[in-house]
Amino acid sequence: MQLGVGLIGTGFMGKSHALAWRNVIAVLGGDLGAVAQPDLRLLCETPADKASQMAAQFGFACATSDWQELVADPQIDVVSITTPNGLHHPMAMAAIAAGKHVWCEKPMALTLAQAEEMAAAARDRGVVTMVGYNYLSNPAFTHAQRLVSGGAIGRPVQFRGWVDEDYQADPDLPWTWRARLQEAGLGALGDIGTHLISLTQGIMGPIASLIADMQTIHETRPLPDGSGRGTVENEDAANVLLRFANGAQGTLVISRSAWGRKSRLGFEIHGDRGMIIFDQERMNELQIYQNDGPRAEQGFKTILTGPAHPPYGAFCPAPGHQLGFNDLKVIECGRLLQGIAGIAAAEPGFDAALQIERVIHAIADSARAGGQRIAL
Amino acid sequence: MQLGVGLIGTGFMGKSHALAWRNVIAVLGGDLGAVAQPDLRLLCETPADKASQMAAQFGFACATSDWQELVADPQIDVVSITTPNGLHHPMAMAAIAAGKHVWCEKPMALTLAQAEEMAAAARDRGVVTMVGYNYLSNPAFTHAQRLVSGGAIGRPVQFRGWVDEDYQADPDLPWTWRARLQEAGLGALGDIGTHLISLTQGIMGPIASLIADMQTIHETRPLPDGSGRGTVENEDAANVLLRFANGAQGTLVISRSAWGRKSRLGFEIHGDRGMIIFDQERMNELQIYQNDGPRAEQGFKTILTGPAHPPYGAFCPAPGHQLGFNDLKVIECGRLLQGIAGIAAAEPGFDAALQIERVIHAIADSARAGGQRIAL
Amino acid sequence: MQLGVGLIGTGFMGKSHALAWRNVIAVLGGDLGAVAQPDLRLLCETPADKASQMAAQFGFACATSDWQELVADPQIDVVSITTPNGLHHPMAMAAIAAGKHVWCEKPMALTLAQAEEMAAAARDRGVVTMVGYNYLSNPAFTHAQRLVSGGAIGRPVQFRGWVDEDYQADPDLPWTWRARLQEAGLGALGDIGTHLISLTQGIMGPIASLIADMQTIHETRPLPDGSGRGTVENEDAANVLLRFANGAQGTLVISRSAWGRKSRLGFEIHGDRGMIIFDQERMNELQIYQNDGPRAEQGFKTILTGPAHPPYGAFCPAPGHQLGFNDLKVIECGRLLQGIAGIAAAEPGFDAALQIERVIHAIADSARAGGQRIAL
Amino acid sequence: MQLGVGLIGTGFMGKSHALAWRNVIAVLGGDLGAVAQPDLRLLCETPADKASQMAAQFGFACATSDWQELVADPQIDVVSITTPNGLHHPMAMAAIAAGKHVWCEKPMALTLAQAEEMAAAARDRGVVTMVGYNYLSNPAFTHAQRLVSGGAIGRPVQFRGWVDEDYQADPDLPWTWRARLQEAGLGALGDIGTHLISLTQGIMGPIASLIADMQTIHETRPLPDGSGRGTVENEDAANVLLRFANGAQGTLVISRSAWGRKSRLGFEIHGDRGMIIFDQERMNELQIYQNDGPRAEQGFKTILTGPAHPPYGAFCPAPGHQLGFNDLKVIECGRLLQGIAGIAAAEPGFDAALQIERVIHAIADSARAGGQRIAL
Repeated sequence: MQLGVGLIGTGFMGKSHALAWRNVIAVLGGDLGAVAQPDLRLLCETPADKASQMAAQFGFACATSDWQELVADPQIDVVSITTPNGLHHPMAMAAIAAGKHVWCEKPMALTLAQAEEMAAAARDRGVVTMVGYNYLSNPAFTHAQRLVSGGAIGRPVQFRGWVDEDYQADPDLPWTWRARLQEAGLGALGDIGTHLISLTQGIMGPIASLIADMQTIHETRPLPDGSGRGTVENEDAANVLLRFANGAQGTLVISRSAWGRKSRLGFEIHGDRGMIIFDQERMNELQIYQNDGPRAEQGFKTILTGPAHPPYGAFCPAPGHQLGFNDLKVIECGRLLQGIAGIAAAEPGFDAALQIERVIHAIADSARAGGQRIAL
Repeated sequence: MQLGVGLIGTGFMGKSHALAWRNVIAVLGGDLGAVAQPDLRLLCETPADKASQMAAQFGFACATSDWQELVADPQIDVVSITTPNGLHHPMAMAAIAAGKHVWCEKPMALTLAQAEEMAAAARDRGVVTMVGYNYLSNPAFTHAQRLVSGGAIGRPVQFRGWVDEDYQADPDLPWTWRARLQEAGLGALGDIGTHLISLTQGIMGPIASLIADMQTIHETRPLPDGSGRGTVENEDAANVLLRFANGAQGTLVISRSAWGRKSRLGFEIHGDRGMIIFDQERMNELQIYQNDGPRAEQGFKTILTGPAHPPYGAFCPAPGHQLGFNDLKVIECGRLLQGIAGIAAAEPGFDAALQIERVIHAIADSARAGGQRIAL
Repeated sequence: MQLGVGLIGTGFMGKSHALAWRNVIAVLGGDLGAVAQPDLRLLCETPADKASQMAAQFGFACATSDWQELVADPQIDVVSITTPNGLHHPMAMAAIAAGKHVWCEKPMALTLAQAEEMAAAARDRGVVTMVGYNYLSNPAFTHAQRLVSGGAIGRPVQFRGWVDEDYQADPDLPWTWRARLQEAGLGALGDIGTHLISLTQGIMGPIASLIADMQTIHETRPLPDGSGRGTVENEDAANVLLRFANGAQGTLVISRSAWGRKSRLGFEIHGDRGMIIFDQERMNELQIYQNDGPRAEQGFKTILTGPAHPPYGAFCPAPGHQLGFNDLKVIECGRLLQGIAGIAAAEPGFDAALQIERVIHAIADSARAGGQRIAL
Repeated sequence: MQLGVGLIGTGFMGKSHALAWRNVIAVLGGDLGAVAQPDLRLLCETPADKASQMAAQFGFACATSDWQELVADPQIDVVSITTPNGLHHPMAMAAIAAGKHVWCEKPMALTLAQAEEMAAAARDRGVVTMVGYNYLSNPAFTHAQRLVSGGAIGRPVQFRGWVDEDYQADPDLPWTWRARLQEAGLGALGDIGTHLISLTQGIMGPIASLIADMQTIHETRPLPDGSGRGTVENEDAANVLLRFANGAQGTLVISRSAWGRKSRLGFEIHGDRGMIIFDQERMNELQIYQNDGPRAEQGFKTILTGPAHPPYGAFCPAPGHQLGFNDLKVIECGRLLQGIAGIAAAEPGFDAALQIERVIHAIADSARAGGQRIAL
């Protein structure tokens, strides 16, 4: 099956999507290739000459500066949306309306209402959707999922999740659209908190209720035109108390202003027989402690991922040689292809991703209400 | 000045106090020795023959099995209290009434009312008091305090504290008095949460308000006599959202049932110019990130403590050779001696420690009220 | 410039070459694309149906099972050689004779004489060559090179290099051709020792002389047909004392039988002003200590690679998001393209790689002679 | 049994001995106390007033500035020698002649001949001796010994040892007596190399032969009187190839000029079933990898020492609370007391320590001979 691919955006995630589309079959192999062959047809960027240039670089057949043209193109079967958050909703709605499958970056939308509308539309139209929660595809994470569900640490009782970066740590950074609620929506919660929620619910199951606090660390930033300082309308950091449906409790800490943290996204899960720890800054490692054997020999074990942790072996047959960030997107793309080919569900689709949006908006609501408990 | 020392208790902390009294002058030196010479006079333990045996081992001149005799002994100037938590209050009250200085293990008491009574009595009687928050004496921690107060990480904006051990992680451990509110008071909060609060307020200043959740992970435990299962009345774990008086926000996580953690007590402080991280499981290390110099050269620096971090050099002139847990108690004992000699305040005394008790009781109160914000 | 690419081999390194050819322009960009556009023309594998299948998967236009056909094909401008070590020499000689550029995996050949012949042939024919020392392309390593050459640690005085894996650690692994001198040549030295030498000389400059010891840890292995045990003719491990041309001294340790090590390849360099440490198992990190500032603030700094360490930013604009093993091959491929386009020298070509072969053969010679010093 | 203790020296190791004598019974307990009660009788230091002052601080009954008086004192049963290396020989010889037991710091002497004389004299006189190889007493190390001898990693095949500090790393440090062969003897080999040999042979058994290289990194240093530069006559660093009697091979690296290393003393042992790693800079940790269980779950385990690693529990009943450097000396002192009481051999005594001296002198001899293999 040839699959016409249209990509909107060529920035950070646009390039990552492009590489994933280029590599998915080469890496994951012939079986998948037999059912779905991506054909890189159309790239959308502005202005038009940049679109052409990036299409050449990324290997797309054609270029356009008009995303509506892309969405309408009958040769396009699946649309990758990697534009700023505020554009996800109109683009996804148009693509769904045109009957295209959609691979959309997170968060789905600026508001929960928009996200709900997108999920409903996809459901109605019967297209396959996937939201870009790439860290779910890390073989270290999926191995952690298997260990936890297989009882390796017993009953999970406490969860601690964190996601920290420092891209908004510098007080002297100029004000941008990212600071505006209307354009960016939530701040750290939308950008990186969503990733943390995806891992949290992916391994612990649903959050039952939460209480949160939130903070704008840098309340104003210098306007780029030198005309004074602009207000930062969304949060730099949030902290959350969690109760899970399975009875466990826990916390989340989220910051985009945490100096020194570059991609610190992880968690520790305390079980009644052991503990498991993961951190994306050392994405090829997993730590586990099990209450087994003589006390004198117990300790945290650091597992390096390798072919024993599929689909690592599709990238490299030698353990410990390390996957990188863009490799996760290749795995995610493979899951999307399987979904489109009807081999397996493409997860997280819009329905599953909607649960993630619900959580971040509940966090913001709880914090705005001064720390009210919100049930989910 | 000869100082008659009476020690009550010979367990974990009893031995640590005994070693501290034996070593404080030998380690910290002649200047301190010139003003205060501990004389290990009387050891109290039950039964009497164990008291005699431990007095011989620890080098105390006499032994008794009656703590009231010890407290009344006119040769005793200072009383070390290292008994189970429920006994701190009567012993300290009696010692204060007898005009003795008091070195008491934490928490001060089972209830906040008792702790307040102890602080008031000490204030009225004018005796010097010290509560055993030994981790405050770690040269790595005091160096962190200096770095933060000196602006090394700028304005502190977020704080994350943790204290985890696994001494109550095993579901099959038998029920003990530790599980009873009336005998043990709080659970993890009293045992180890207090230590975390001591570091937290020691480096961040006062907590303004908090919201908490709490969990008894193992709700019953097998009774030691095999007659069934007893109820665990206090908490195994607690999670807290914090707001500090200085405007920073943060979290605390506390567990006595965290498999694999043996003495994990630490924190990270996010400032607007950097971050600092400490963990007692690697108690001779400190990590700092500073937004200085070219971006390509920035990173977390691991500082190993040495003579540049006083009073490390009093133990060993060579850096990186490592202090141990008991060494912290020696430093604490030195501060107590300075307090008694009138050279410097002995901190944390009962007044300062009372603030720590207030916080843990506020955590418990907030959690029992379903997550209500409590101002401090 | 269109560049016809022929790839021989589809195993571990074959796939890595294929991905590199697919991605090099998409990742590294339009400037490079303007001068050199790889055209994936012909893939060679045996048997023929596997060749066709892999050509489809990797995106090559045609397939063959005859490498001589590939080498002779006028549409092919550059040949990737990723076959077992014994085939490098005949394939490279034929490709050079046909005027093709050559990208060859390491080691160059089974014997030093063969390697010298290859280098001489390439020099005579004027083709561009590149040997697959991919770890040289790690942005963390190239940053280390810049730091050292820029004086960040002062004068280098000691070097310690290591390369350990455990693919031959298990005593029960069956005997294979890898154990035969005639087919595999050297053992650990050829497989992984060469990589270590590439980094060592890449950052320290030439080795002046060495003394070595060598060990076959598992002297026999079970024959696969169950007929007894076969002899392991080459080394599992080697240890080396080094003197460098710049006056520094050092050691190398090399093992293919080091349980737990998966891709441990790294070094520490002691300078008279600091130290720098790199290890491929945490390939996105670099550690540096500098004797700068107050003693109390000194420590090893862990630098996470990011856009400040080119060409990391071509893969991802966010620091700390991690490159993977295959990304290094993309960077290497970019350097080859620059070499072919005449923009910059493709290094290490056959001449530079020959120096690496000389060292590993000197190590083996010294060890066989019982630890004789050999000048290079 | 009362045991009259005389201590010579009050510097780094003098204080450590004093603390050990003060604490040994209090920590290790009544059983040992029943057979041997140290009585801190006489302290020797110069000048006399410093001796008196330090005797008061350390709790010795009397003071002297004349070591020969101390050695002759009939009340003294055991002599602690903690003076500069050149004085070990005359002091130990005199103490042995007077029938005293001797606890001597390492290295035993400046020359091998002196060390041999000391060992012979002690043997002849029948006194108990102990040399201060304190790192042998680390519970993490003795646990490693048990693991290795119990087969936890199978047959040991490779050993890599290191000992690095930076106390002579700074090129601008002034010249001292430490740089003179006649006063200091060997450099890094004597100071810290000896410790590494003690661990190496303690866990691997005897070294059969070696080949070494050696380096004086800073060949001259500024004379303290400003009159120019003095020559450094001994080595800053040494590197060694090892063959063990048990068939294993390995390396040692030794430097006193390794910036950033404060007490890096450790090793990794490769066995045919696993690997074990220890480093004194994290002295309460031990790492082990074992080829057991499913490949996907294998990894290096970090064991934190605790009561399961005797005699840790004598210091603290809680695991992970950390021993410090001076605690190791207490354990060593306990072994000496057991030796004197006839309960167990005090090891390493002069005979065992002599084997360590033989190795470091063999290293120096091999290096001076340009890398000749020397059998031991």
